[in-house]
Amino acid sequence: MPDPRAGRVAALREAVQHAHLDAVLLTSLPNIRYITGFSGSSALVLITARDVLLISDFRYATQVRSEVGDFARIIIDAQSIWGALFRAQADLAGVEIAGFESAHVLHRDVERILSGGSRWQWRATTDLVEALREQKDADEVAAIAAAVEVAERALGRTLDEVHAGMTELQVAGLLERALRDAGSRGFPFETIVASGPRAALPHARPDDREVRRGDLLLIDFGAIVDGYCSDITRTVVVGPATDEQRGVHAIVRGANEAATSGVRAGMRGQDADAIARRYIEERGQGDAFGHGLGHGIGLEVHEAPRLARTADGVLPTGSVVTIEPGIYREGWGGVRVEDDVVLGAGGPRRLTTFSHELLEIG
Amino acid sequence: MPDPRAGRVAALREAVQHAHLDAVLLTSLPNIRYITGFSGSSALVLITARDVLLISDFRYATQVRSEVGDFARIIIDAQSIWGALFRAQADLAGVEIAGFESAHVLHRDVERILSGGSRWQWRATTDLVEALREQKDADEVAAIAAAVEVAERALGRTLDEVHAGMTELQVAGLLERALRDAGSRGFPFETIVASGPRAALPHARPDDREVRRGDLLLIDFGAIVDGYCSDITRTVVVGPATDEQRGVHAIVRGANEAATSGVRAGMRGQDADAIARRYIEERGQGDAFGHGLGHGIGLEVHEAPRLARTADGVLPTGSVVTIEPGIYREGWGGVRVEDDVVLGAGGPRRLTTFSHELLEIG
Repeated sequence: MPDPRAGRVAALREAVQHAHLDAVLLTSLPNIRYITGFSGSSALVLITARDVLLISDFRYATQVRSEVGDFARIIIDAQSIWGALFRAQADLAGVEIAGFESAHVLHRDVERILSGGSRWQWRATTDLVEALREQKDADEVAAIAAAVEVAERALGRTLDEVHAGMTELQVAGLLERALRDAGSRGFPFETIVASGPRAALPHARPDDREVRRGDLLLIDFGAIVDGYCSDITRTVVVGPATDEQRGVHAIVRGANEAATSGVRAGMRGQDADAIARRYIEERGQGDAFGHGLGHGIGLEVHEAPRLARTADGVLPTGSVVTIEPGIYREGWGGVRVEDDVVLGAGGPRRLTTFSHELLEIG
Repeated sequence: MPDPRAGRVAALREAVQHAHLDAVLLTSLPNIRYITGFSGSSALVLITARDVLLISDFRYATQVRSEVGDFARIIIDAQSIWGALFRAQADLAGVEIAGFESAHVLHRDVERILSGGSRWQWRATTDLVEALREQKDADEVAAIAAAVEVAERALGRTLDEVHAGMTELQVAGLLERALRDAGSRGFPFETIVASGPRAALPHARPDDREVRRGDLLLIDFGAIVDGYCSDITRTVVVGPATDEQRGVHAIVRGANEAATSGVRAGMRGQDADAIARRYIEERGQGDAFGHGLGHGIGLEVHEAPRLARTADGVLPTGSVVTIEPGIYREGWGGVRVEDDVVLGAGGPRRLTTFSHELLEIG
C-alpha cells in the first residue's frame, strides 16, 4: 500500500506553489500529524520543494523516530524548537518567501518568526492543509468508523448501568471507563452529560446533580482510534417518557433522519442545515434549535466543512460530518440526536448504528 | 466574604495603566475565568478603567448569567463575538490605546482586531493576568488541595484493582472513572499510563500494551475541582521490585524530598531545579533527568512559575508548584515522583500526602 503521506505532501506542495510561496511552516498539530504521522504535542514542520523538516523536543525523541521514520528530516532540540528552525533555515536552499498558518500560530510566535526567521519573507496562509483534510481516504473513513464503533459499544454498556440516583459525574465516569475498555485512545472533547433541566444547556459539563426518574439524559461524547474522532449524541429518559418528551424527541429524530437522507456531497453547508431546520420549523419549534446542524470530523472533532445557516461552502465528496439537530427549552430540558455521516460519491452513508428510538433506561 | 474578582480587576487595571494602556482585551479562557468567573469555551472580555465587558455566544447565555452575574456587562451575540466587540467599542469612552494578549491570540484574530477594531490603537501585552495568577489566595489553595485529595482517592482505589494482564488503556479507564466518582469535573491533561519500557517516555499516552509482572507502572494524572487542577505522578511495580527498580526509585524519591524541603518562595526557579538535579547528579544519574523540576499549577495545569535550568524568575510567595524529578532509561523504563507544593511565607507545604514508598501492587 502506498504511503498516504507522499500524496499529501505532493498536494500540499502544489497548494504552496499556487499561493506563490517557496515553503510553508506548519504549527497546527493535527496538520502536522496529517502530513508526517507525528502525534506528539510539540513540533514544527517545514515543507519546501525538496525537504520535509520536523523539529521536536527531547521528550519525543523516541516517538518521533517510530512515527515519522525516514519521511522527514528530524531535528530534536533540547532548548527551543524555534531556535532550531531558525538555524535550519541557513541550509535550506531556494526559499525566499514562506507561509505560516495564520489560524494556528499565536501573535507571540509570529513576532518570533519575523525576527528570528528574517532570512526569509513570511506571509500568512489559511486552510492549505485543512482543505486537503476535508476529503477523507478509505483508511481515514475506516478509522472514524472504528471510533464510532468504540463509542457505540461504550454507550451501550453505560446505558445498561445508569440508574436514578447516580450523579452526572458518575455517569460520565462509567462512560469514560467503558470508552477506554473499548479501546479509545482518548477523549476528543469534554464529555457532556446533562440531566433534567440541565439538558437545555447545549454544552453542559457533568455536574454533581443526581439523575432522577423522569429526567431527560443527554450524552454527547466521542472516541479516538488511530488519531481519528467520533462524535455522537443520544438523549434518553430515565424511567418512562412523558408525551412531551416523546413529542420533542420525535421531531429531533425526524430532523436528523431527513437531513441524513437528504444531505449530499456538492451541496452547500447551509442547504444541508436547511433540511433539518425546515423540518423543525414546520413543527413550530424553529426558535428552539439555536445551533448549526453539524461539522466535519477527522483528526479534530471540529473541522471543515461546516453545516450551518451561514456556511456557504460546498460539502466535498469524501467528507465526514456530524448531523446533530436539537431542541432546547430553558427550565425543561433538551433533546439532541447526533450521528456521523460519510458524504460518498454515491450518497450519504451513516456510520452510527445506535438506535434512534427514545430509550427508557434504569 | 469580599468578591475576589473585585481585587483582581483592580490589580489588572493598575497593570494596564502601568503599561500605558487604556484597556485590555482578554482572549485567554483561564484569564477570563480568573477575572470574571466565566468557565465556558467562547468569550472575549474587555477591561477599561470603568467597564468590564464580557461577550459570549448563545450556547452560554444561561451559564454566563449564573457565573458572572452583575460583575460584568454581558453581551450575547448569535453571529460573532468579534463583531459584537467591534460594535461595543463605540460606546466605550476614554479608550485610545488597548492591549491584546500576545500569547493567547491567533495571528488571524490579531488581523481581525486591527481591521475591525481600528477605532483604537492596539498593542501586544504579555503576562498581565498571568502575573496576578501566580500568587494564589486561600480559596485558590483550598481548591487545589481539594483537587489533590480527589486525585489521591482515585489513585488509591485504582492501585487496589490494577493487576498484571490489564492493558494501559484499562488502567487509565479505572483511574478516570475513579476520578469522576471522587468528584473531578474533568481531566486537566491526557492521563499518562506507561508500563515497562514505555515508562521511559515522559509523555506516553496509554496504549494497548498489557501490564506484566515485574513492570514499572508510571501514572501521571490530575483532577479538577472548582476549575483548579492537581497534577500527581506515582511509579509503582507490578509484583516484587528488583534491586535496580528500588535503586532508581530511591534516588528519584530522595530528589523529590530534597527539593520539596529545600524550595522557598523568593528563590529563583533554576535554584529550586538545581536542588533535585544536584541530588541526582551526585548519584551518577544526571543524564537521565532530561526535563525541568516543575511548574506552577492553578486554573491551568501548566502556568507560571517555572522550575527549570533556564528559569531565572523568582518563585513568588503563594505560588503552587509541582516537584517532579524523574530518571528515564531507554529500553528499561522510568521513574517519576511528583507532588504539589504551596510556597508559603513560612516555608513550603506539600499538599500531596500519597505514600512515597515504592509500592508493589497486583
